[in-house]
Amino acid sequence: MKINENYKKLKASYLFSTIAKKVAEFTEKNPDKKIIRLGIGDVTKPLCKTVVEAIKNAAIEMGTPEGFHGYGPEQGYDFLKEEIKKYYSKRNVALELDEIFISDGAKSDLGNILDLFSTENTVLIPDPVYPVYVDTNTMQNRKIIFAKADEENKFLPMPDDNVKADIVYLCSPNNPTGAVYNKEQLEKWVAWANKNNAIILFDAAYECFISDSNLPRSIFEIKGAKNCAIEFCSFSKTAGFTGTRCGYTVVPLELEFSEMKLNKMWLRRQTTKFNGVPYIVQRGAAAVFTEAGQKEILENINYYKKNAKLIADTLDKHNIFYTGGIHSPYIWMKCPNNMTSWEFFDYLLNEIQVVGTPGSGFGVNGEGFFRLTSFGTYENTKEAMERLDKILK
Amino acid sequence: MKINENYKKLKASYLFSTIAKKVAEFTEKNPDKKIIRLGIGDVTKPLCKTVVEAIKNAAIEMGTPEGFHGYGPEQGYDFLKEEIKKYYSKRNVALELDEIFISDGAKSDLGNILDLFSTENTVLIPDPVYPVYVDTNTMQNRKIIFAKADEENKFLPMPDDNVKADIVYLCSPNNPTGAVYNKEQLEKWVAWANKNNAIILFDAAYECFISDSNLPRSIFEIKGAKNCAIEFCSFSKTAGFTGTRCGYTVVPLELEFSEMKLNKMWLRRQTTKFNGVPYIVQRGAAAVFTEAGQKEILENINYYKKNAKLIADTLDKHNIFYTGGIHSPYIWMKCPNNMTSWEFFDYLLNEIQVVGTPGSGFGVNGEGFFRLTSFGTYENTKEAMERLDKILK
Repeated sequence: MKINENYKKLKASYLFSTIAKKVAEFTEKNPDKKIIRLGIGDVTKPLCKTVVEAIKNAAIEMGTPEGFHGYGPEQGYDFLKEEIKKYYSKRNVALELDEIFISDGAKSDLGNILDLFSTENTVLIPDPVYPVYVDTNTMQNRKIIFAKADEENKFLPMPDDNVKADIVYLCSPNNPTGAVYNKEQLEKWVAWANKNNAIILFDAAYECFISDSNLPRSIFEIKGAKNCAIEFCSFSKTAGFTGTRCGYTVVPLELEFSEMKLNKMWLRRQTTKFNGVPYIVQRGAAAVFTEAGQKEILENINYYKKNAKLIADTLDKHNIFYTGGIHSPYIWMKCPNNMTSWEFFDYLLNEIQVVGTPGSGFGVNGEGFFRLTSFGTYENTKEAMERLDKILK
Repeated sequence: MKINENYKKLKASYLFSTIAKKVAEFTEKNPDKKIIRLGIGDVTKPLCKTVVEAIKNAAIEMGTPEGFHGYGPEQGYDFLKEEIKKYYSKRNVALELDEIFISDGAKSDLGNILDLFSTENTVLIPDPVYPVYVDTNTMQNRKIIFAKADEENKFLPMPDDNVKADIVYLCSPNNPTGAVYNKEQLEKWVAWANKNNAIILFDAAYECFISDSNLPRSIFEIKGAKNCAIEFCSFSKTAGFTGTRCGYTVVPLELEFSEMKLNKMWLRRQTTKFNGVPYIVQRGAAAVFTEAGQKEILENINYYKKNAKLIADTLDKHNIFYTGGIHSPYIWMKCPNNMTSWEFFDYLLNEIQVVGTPGSGFGVNGEGFFRLTSFGTYENTKEAMERLDKILK
């Protein structure tokens, strides 16, 4: 038996293990110092009340002969797809139920969607980037090229007619940079994709952090996107589902390459290699869209956004360049005094005991940058910013 | 963008849609006749009490700051892996926790495991067979050859030294035939695989139906299997999790091909393309292993097995050849009077209004056979068998 040799090309990432090691070493030497972690990439607020109730009720239902649900439709129950359809219609995006596929999270579908594409395609990935875009394509041996994201383009690379690519990843609001594309920018990407017979994989996992109604939360707010894009969404950051696992993927009915409808291909993939999301979890996700659910999740999102604002305000005060912080839980800051990402990491840890994530861990263009997140508590974030304010003076 | 052209080679299956159409037509013409469905491939008994309680409690926990669980380990929580380890140790199979990967079901992992293997391998699949083995390999363009399962080998094909293959699927107890390999037979397969540098993908989704302690419930009861096999298990049939989605895959630490440990490769695949099973679902699955949980699920399994016995006894009375029915929820019977699978389907529907599944839908060697299942109610199964008994006279 021959293995898939591409796995030998995967690079190991020591980013988070190195951070953990450095923090442990510091703590051992300085057991009395309070460390504040602003590197957390996971939500910390519990599931909201309405969601918990819905899951409990669904569990009770599953214990009765009349309420039991066995195999469900692989692509998800209509009761949840209807809610998602309504959610999109508020932004004037009309979806058919058949265009919505309930998933166990954006990460799974972002990897699995590649099953539909030839390995001969060239993939264009912004750098810095969420590492799984690169790894999942490396596993299938596609040629990868990078779009430079930097201070000049405010970490929002734009299409280049001289660059030939078949598959492009866009993540907006971006992880790790927090940068958000506006309508005009996305229009250019859609025009480029349609002109070049390319497909856009649009990662919208952080769309709920956008509060400016002029900024697109979905690629399908852009005319022509249904002919060139697939969108990946998640309840992870929206409703704290990182450990509850539910998301959705929108594959337009008209999306077609090589005379094959991608919607039909994805349906075939999912019915063959997936068995749907747990009924109880889909009931929980549907509760997110109730009036009470919306109110409760918004409280959590606003809590994180208040933390982000604390960080952004501190950086503004010291005229430090950053992206994110407003429509995103992430703040991507330039390291002061031309420090490298790891130099700044060590500096913050040693001087003020604040832990963040070195930008160089997300790609070569991340060097000299640093990611802070708003998923901590308000009190800790405030204390961290007071400490930061002092050393930046 | 070029699509994966292999999707064009996938054959559409009209098996269940044709059954539905024929039943609908009959019902329209004969609205007063009571149809009994013995073709159901899904469980019908609700989740057991202990599991429902565990899920409810986990949901409550998730709604508290101290009990909230965000991203969990992609490969599953130790509290569940510990229970599975104990479950195997009862059959004298020693597993390390790192060999157990919690999944959202055997179907997902049986498809996704193929990511680890070169597309140049040849795949050996028994016929008749669960259709996803064929489809998932067709999607990746592997050469597929079939091992003939028939009346002569009691639907348990054995290895042939003249047949060269790199990947072999074994499903025991089998879907659709219900046939179960004994220890000596599996020893031959393990010896063949180790000799030929092949890997066995062992689908043990129905292991809980085995009540004879001499019959292996795991391939790892066979010496040498850890060097050539991966095992796929599920709570779907064990504990009625078809709509709750949890399973597990065992990848031995010593399993190695082309100098790569498959355990490490699978860990890399799962951490890159999967985010784990919901915490609440893993809590539910762990409850299956409590004393109360075991007692409750056994009641359900025995209910189905009692139905299976009713069917088997009826066939025995009329000297009809069948496999399964004892250590399986499936009964795979030979159609009487040399009828084809569809002729027998029509005959049962028209004469006694019993609906089953034509064996020809599972592969060419399924022609002339018919699948009945034990997932109906006892009353309906009994009535169906009384009707069958009369026309077989």
